[in-house]
Amino acid sequence: MLRTHHCGQLTKEQVGQTVILNGWVQTRRDLGGVLFIDLRDRSGIVQVVFNPDFSGDALAIADRARSEYVLAVQGKVVERDPETVNKNIATGEIEIQVTQVEIMSPAKTPPFFIEDGIQVDESLRLKYRYLDIRRPEMQKTLMLRSKAAKLFRNFLDEQGFIEVETPILTKSTPEGAREYLVPSRVHPGEFFSLPQSPQIYKQLLMVGGLERYYQIARCFRDEDLRADRQPEFTQVDIETSFLSQDQLLELMEELIAKLMNETAGVDIARPFQRLSYADAMAKYGSDKPDLRFGLELQDVSDIVGESGVQVFANVIKNGGQVKALNAKGCGTWSRKEIDDLLPFAARYGAKGLAWIQVKEGEFKGPIVKFFNEAEIAALTERLGAEEGDLLLFSADKKKVVADVLGNLRLKIGRDLGLIDDSVFKFAWVVDFPLLGYDEEEKRYVAEHHPFTRPKEEDLHFFDTDPGQIRAQAYDLVLNGYEVGGGSMRIFKREVQEKMFDALGFSKEEATEKFGFLLEAFEYGTPPHGGIAFGFDRLVMLIAGQSNLRETIAFPKTVSATDLLTDAPSALEDKQLEQLSIRVALKQPAGKA
Amino acid sequence: MLRTHHCGQLTKEQVGQTVILNGWVQTRRDLGGVLFIDLRDRSGIVQVVFNPDFSGDALAIADRARSEYVLAVQGKVVERDPETVNKNIATGEIEIQVTQVEIMSPAKTPPFFIEDGIQVDESLRLKYRYLDIRRPEMQKTLMLRSKAAKLFRNFLDEQGFIEVETPILTKSTPEGAREYLVPSRVHPGEFFSLPQSPQIYKQLLMVGGLERYYQIARCFRDEDLRADRQPEFTQVDIETSFLSQDQLLELMEELIAKLMNETAGVDIARPFQRLSYADAMAKYGSDKPDLRFGLELQDVSDIVGESGVQVFANVIKNGGQVKALNAKGCGTWSRKEIDDLLPFAARYGAKGLAWIQVKEGEFKGPIVKFFNEAEIAALTERLGAEEGDLLLFSADKKKVVADVLGNLRLKIGRDLGLIDDSVFKFAWVVDFPLLGYDEEEKRYVAEHHPFTRPKEEDLHFFDTDPGQIRAQAYDLVLNGYEVGGGSMRIFKREVQEKMFDALGFSKEEATEKFGFLLEAFEYGTPPHGGIAFGFDRLVMLIAGQSNLRETIAFPKTVSATDLLTDAPSALEDKQLEQLSIRVALKQPAGKA
Repeated sequence: MLRTHHCGQLTKEQVGQTVILNGWVQTRRDLGGVLFIDLRDRSGIVQVVFNPDFSGDALAIADRARSEYVLAVQGKVVERDPETVNKNIATGEIEIQVTQVEIMSPAKTPPFFIEDGIQVDESLRLKYRYLDIRRPEMQKTLMLRSKAAKLFRNFLDEQGFIEVETPILTKSTPEGAREYLVPSRVHPGEFFSLPQSPQIYKQLLMVGGLERYYQIARCFRDEDLRADRQPEFTQVDIETSFLSQDQLLELMEELIAKLMNETAGVDIARPFQRLSYADAMAKYGSDKPDLRFGLELQDVSDIVGESGVQVFANVIKNGGQVKALNAKGCGTWSRKEIDDLLPFAARYGAKGLAWIQVKEGEFKGPIVKFFNEAEIAALTERLGAEEGDLLLFSADKKKVVADVLGNLRLKIGRDLGLIDDSVFKFAWVVDFPLLGYDEEEKRYVAEHHPFTRPKEEDLHFFDTDPGQIRAQAYDLVLNGYEVGGGSMRIFKREVQEKMFDALGFSKEEATEKFGFLLEAFEYGTPPHGGIAFGFDRLVMLIAGQSNLRETIAFPKTVSATDLLTDAPSALEDKQLEQLSIRVALKQPAGKA
Repeated sequence: MLRTHHCGQLTKEQVGQTVILNGWVQTRRDLGGVLFIDLRDRSGIVQVVFNPDFSGDALAIADRARSEYVLAVQGKVVERDPETVNKNIATGEIEIQVTQVEIMSPAKTPPFFIEDGIQVDESLRLKYRYLDIRRPEMQKTLMLRSKAAKLFRNFLDEQGFIEVETPILTKSTPEGAREYLVPSRVHPGEFFSLPQSPQIYKQLLMVGGLERYYQIARCFRDEDLRADRQPEFTQVDIETSFLSQDQLLELMEELIAKLMNETAGVDIARPFQRLSYADAMAKYGSDKPDLRFGLELQDVSDIVGESGVQVFANVIKNGGQVKALNAKGCGTWSRKEIDDLLPFAARYGAKGLAWIQVKEGEFKGPIVKFFNEAEIAALTERLGAEEGDLLLFSADKKKVVADVLGNLRLKIGRDLGLIDDSVFKFAWVVDFPLLGYDEEEKRYVAEHHPFTRPKEEDLHFFDTDPGQIRAQAYDLVLNGYEVGGGSMRIFKREVQEKMFDALGFSKEEATEKFGFLLEAFEYGTPPHGGIAFGFDRLVMLIAGQSNLRETIAFPKTVSATDLLTDAPSALEDKQLEQLSIRVALKQPAGKA
């Protein structure tokens, strides 16, 4: 009994036809000897009816069917009586009068209902993922993911990009602390590594004259576990030659706008907002700001530095910063409500949280008495303080202030309902610093990677103040998430040498770390640059989800285990022996 | 100087325009102070001219350029004099009068010429792969690969298949001797494994109601090394629910015909030939026959079993077989030429090679005297022996005879020029045996895998002669290569139990080996089945190549090493310690 039609696609057009359907029993109702089954396949649901009047033996067979049994039914499509039309389903105007049925597979009672919006522990869903993905919302997300991949590919194909598969079994790098490693059986004692990204290969493809490359690439990171990370993840990996940063970003905007239009049905205005890293940090305390709402941070160091608030003065004297956030309309909060912000702020390093309420035309709160009139006037102006506002202050090192106020901004924005979930607000954050100073190692380290191209106009800082150099590096942010990032790459030997100098690498060290790539660069390297989009995260945001696992068919938990297959698992000694390795536990094995 | 045009796309249409080109120096000729450079980018080559009359300073700058330098040039497109038109290149009617030039990157002299048809050791090409893929033929193959992937995807998308990414970090199976394993840092002493195929996941997706799945999937096999294997390879992985084998194969034929049409420009007639495994082995001694030519094998056991050829009689008495191949027109070969076949046949297990020449109307050769007239007449008829033919005999166990004559058939077909390289001859080999008897383990083993569905009409053999059961399994063969294979899967519990019985697995063993999959099958499994195409091999055949490495951007050698990056490699102790493993060498490390 091979299907002639899909359940969800039947309409009044098929009335009178005999059809064969294959699918799962969604529900089963026995109304006094007449059996109604909602039969479900990927396309949707249709009601099939077993009645002694027309079903013959089929009724008795169908009577054995329970939820999630797989049935093949043959029957006639008939129009329902007007009073039994079900407007909740697409096929609600018709039903099938079954004349033949076959139970293709029985089913045990599933551990949860196969329907949307179930409230069960995620670990149960992951253990029975094959049942979980029968649920329409999971199928929809997986289809969205498939469609998004197709849209990426179609656009890139049309723009002359070549899809190239780069190796998964790659070379371990000396700094690869976060790499997964793979022992080679054929070469005992030697190991491959799984790539954190195809970075090196895509640059080699540019040296190889491919000019435009892309790949929807699996990447791996054996790192400390966080809620929105997966040990294996997917990125849309792109590299181009002979384009400027502006040309590349424009092309990517066209791509993203098209993606959003065809998946989420929204029109994203172009060009996207561009925001320097410095501005993003200053205004939002974050390099991935959520731009769906305002509540911008203001530096008030110049105003409060001389005030009587001792902690402000001290922080500024020690090279720190005082910034404030005007929580519009929160001036009516109770003392308790304000105090409740402190533990939240403390998570991001705040040692305290100074505040001022604007009430009855006046500044109120414990620190107000330390300000003179001029300072109050200046604060009022700088922060646009009005009746009913709450001013929150953070005083600390620059980074702590950014973290504290940046996260308070997000919390208050959410709490005040300033965030419109239907809005997709993209922006480029550009001009990232090229180098960061590592206090422990007492040297500069590459913020992106050692092949990131500096901005032309900042090259002179290599000789004077490398920390000032801005990179031709950019992130794409969406609603507070980084959804892509990349850079133009160095293609000139003299710039590369300056970069290694700044990083404190001798020629020998550089060769040891990046040998074959540096050698490749000697043979005529085109100007090139690229980007990688976090595919899982983009799909998550388009789907309106907040958990990456919802977008992955078979994800791992935050402790990097697969609850369905119970991976990872211990091996037999024989297997280890073949690989010439031995387990050397520091502590008894066990899942964290 | 950002490009306005691509080198290979300039035609007379642009004459008079000022263009900017970016590309590599292919060749450089200095004709008495006038410099001609062939500039190459991905699109092709164009001649750019530096002449004191119009180039100014650019001439002196360009004079420093050598092969593979990256240049940006600006100049005017002019028509060439009729006598200097170069018909060998697409842009041969025009040239560029350069007014400005920039050397974007210099280049060392490459270790081989960047051109098609180079004769250099493959290891040199692999070490400098980034230069190798600058060669037009490599770029063409990589573009073909990209295009083929797109065609697969487009067809499958249109047919309602959903692309799903399945995990690369999966669970190790107890029999996974050929698996790559990955130690988990977070779970000391535990390991992931890299999948040999997404088999289990694709079946789970069918249990999950996805109905039509595909993925262009990376797979891994840590096995003994062969010339046409790669430790990581790519397959187009497909699974469907609610289709019969015939429906699936028809759909796949449509897909392959479309692929071949749009990549190779050939029309493949449908339906494809279908050949049972038994017939393929009988006629061609192979389950992946090259059907571009005849030279079918003939069983002559019945004719020669009673003859005076002692070795034939003995073989047949011991359950073996005598088969013959008529090498048409080789009857004129010298004794030496015939003898030269023996070492070839010996590679496939032949202990000797009996032969008869048909010369001057008679059978000639050492064994002829042992046949009577009736036997000679019967052989003549069975083998269609005619003047000038050479009859080759193999007598041994069935498998040896098939190997020997199957390979002799291929060799002779090639030697005689019977194979038309422009022909793509697809066929399905179907009705594979479900089970094979393992002499060592004294039990049946699954020929495909333990979930392969038996043919309905053979189910009764489970109780009498399991070796007779044919499977609903199929391979797609092309010109002597297996390019795809798959099966319908068991979805009925009682059939699965019979299968495990036949394999000698107790319920406990089955649960241990296939636990979560068997559990999944309890919850309403649809009838399902699928196929996987060997993507690397298909691309290789379409490209007319004979080496998988030509189709892979960064392949590994036959000893599973990457000559470019020098992977695999030894690790630092610190890295191993983090993974809670230690190297335990049985012998000093070193590349094989």
